Amino acid sequence: MIRIPFDEVHRVLTGVLLALGFEPARAQLSARLFAESTRDGVHSHGINRFPRFVQQIRDRVVDIHASPELVATCGAVERWNGRRGPGNLNAHSSMQRAIALCRENGIGCVALANTSHWMRGGSYGWQAAEAGVIGICWTNTQPNLPPWGATKPLVGNNPLVIAVPRAAGPVVLDIAMSQFSFGAVESYRLRGEQLPVDGGFDTGGVLTRDPAAIEASGRMIPIGYWKGSGLALILDLVAALLSGGSATHQIPTDPILETGLSQVFLALDLPSIDKNGIAEEVSRRVVESLRAGGQTVRYPGEQTLRLRRENLELGIPVDPRIWQKVQTL
Amino acid sequence: MIRIPFDEVHRVLTGVLLALGFEPARAQLSARLFAESTRDGVHSHGINRFPRFVQQIRDRVVDIHASPELVATCGAVERWNGRRGPGNLNAHSSMQRAIALCRENGIGCVALANTSHWMRGGSYGWQAAEAGVIGICWTNTQPNLPPWGATKPLVGNNPLVIAVPRAAGPVVLDIAMSQFSFGAVESYRLRGEQLPVDGGFDTGGVLTRDPAAIEASGRMIPIGYWKGSGLALILDLVAALLSGGSATHQIPTDPILETGLSQVFLALDLPSIDKNGIAEEVSRRVVESLRAGGQTVRYPGEQTLRLRRENLELGIPVDPRIWQKVQTL
Repeated sequence: MIRIPFDEVHRVLTGVLLALGFEPARAQLSARLFAESTRDGVHSHGINRFPRFVQQIRDRVVDIHASPELVATCGAVERWNGRRGPGNLNAHSSMQRAIALCRENGIGCVALANTSHWMRGGSYGWQAAEAGVIGICWTNTQPNLPPWGATKPLVGNNPLVIAVPRAAGPVVLDIAMSQFSFGAVESYRLRGEQLPVDGGFDTGGVLTRDPAAIEASGRMIPIGYWKGSGLALILDLVAALLSGGSATHQIPTDPILETGLSQVFLALDLPSIDKNGIAEEVSRRVVESLRAGGQTVRYPGEQTLRLRRENLELGIPVDPRIWQKVQTL
Repeated sequence: MIRIPFDEVHRVLTGVLLALGFEPARAQLSARLFAESTRDGVHSHGINRFPRFVQQIRDRVVDIHASPELVATCGAVERWNGRRGPGNLNAHSSMQRAIALCRENGIGCVALANTSHWMRGGSYGWQAAEAGVIGICWTNTQPNLPPWGATKPLVGNNPLVIAVPRAAGPVVLDIAMSQFSFGAVESYRLRGEQLPVDGGFDTGGVLTRDPAAIEASGRMIPIGYWKGSGLALILDLVAALLSGGSATHQIPTDPILETGLSQVFLALDLPSIDKNGIAEEVSRRVVESLRAGGQTVRYPGEQTLRLRRENLELGIPVDPRIWQKVQTL
């Protein structure tokens, strides 16, 4: 790994997007979201994913000039068409709109159809939290996870994000419905390590920690087995119903062709609801309660903040092969 | 097990509540919610739980005359104080209010503080779905689950419910954040069976399927390990922040004293958002997609509906000792 300053990563990615024809402000924002995910340690949906994003643009799966279009309004709920624009720009714009709706209505909901991969879901949680509101969002995906009781991938891993603002650092949960990502399983195999807990089935249908055995069967497990399986299904259903867009079973399984996704963005105006102004104190106590009796439990987002500070100071660690590849895109 | 007709179960439970001093309509509704949970196979939060509910009333932990009181309004979000009234009546009233709010605003949110155990969370999901809207609700609980990385129960198992209306039978997810409930672990032990998957740690800190070993350590695991741990924490935090009520670490750990809970009820007006009227068709296709390639995967709520029909026809199976106990309460 080499360390590259954040601004340099941002500048190089912006340059690639400008060369592809992005409008300047959109290139800046999309590149910033990729750079920030990398800065926060989520390389899989940061710089490591950037070449595939560029490929999707070159293959015209993603339309760099498309912005979301308002389709229908029902009070504090809006339905938008993402028009297969860049997934991170569409998601950012949708959360921004949900935040505006919640300022007026206490709560706001944007359902976005026909969008592309949003990359790191947590980005839109941080976006809400940094605006001082509670953010909840999720996306469906291509079918990549066998539901409990099946051997074939019929549901998506449908990441779910919940974010709470906090002066000392937001609490941001960003979890996919599979116990591990394919990328994580591959990393364990390449390091010659077993997974820390069961991550899927082997070809004989036995739960295993062996990454190679799971890759061979293709049978990842949902978090909590039947529970995460049901949660993945219903998140998909709600996203498709609210957005009027595609459900997982309608989304192409080729990773390069993955588009037409459905997403939901909810924002809750915490400052207005927190009439007595005790939100900071409540959050502090809840986080502290995790340290009771000398226990050391991290809250969601804690690790992110630590990594972010380190990487802003020392530079973002980047695989030199990826860095070289990105510079020649 | 003996089988008792639904109406008979409802009548007997109503009689007990009337004798305790409930107003007639409130006795009817509270008893109906207990009877319906039992009818749907959720005995643990139906009739089997009824004696403890009565105990909480006798111990004045639950105030049978208290109704929720509106504390603050912020657009489509309302904050209510449950005043330690009966948890199922408070939750039912809160979801009803969220449904009314969503009819006006597309989306509605009720945050309820200072309430008692809502019994079966799924009841309020079915309530929303039967009203034709999407319902999402969750509750915090007393600390009963060690978060990932801890040995002591510092978070709650904080059940999460998501429900989608559907003519052929709603899709209703009702999941606690622990892989198994204490009741389920006990049942496996009494039957001399191992859990189907790891459910906790033994006293040596090794993951195990042995129910007795988990009971000995008290170390249940969250669904998806670190993922469910984070989800439990943030659901608690959001419930406490929105309701202005207690977080898990402030809730008494004695099961009889468990009250002062915080809950969130969200409703989304699907009929108004579904401008093109394709919701039924989308739901049908998503459910059917689970059968692709001869797979047999149940959707959340499917089993409930099957059991409900069977129990309405044949009578509700009730443990004769419980039935006798309830009749003498």
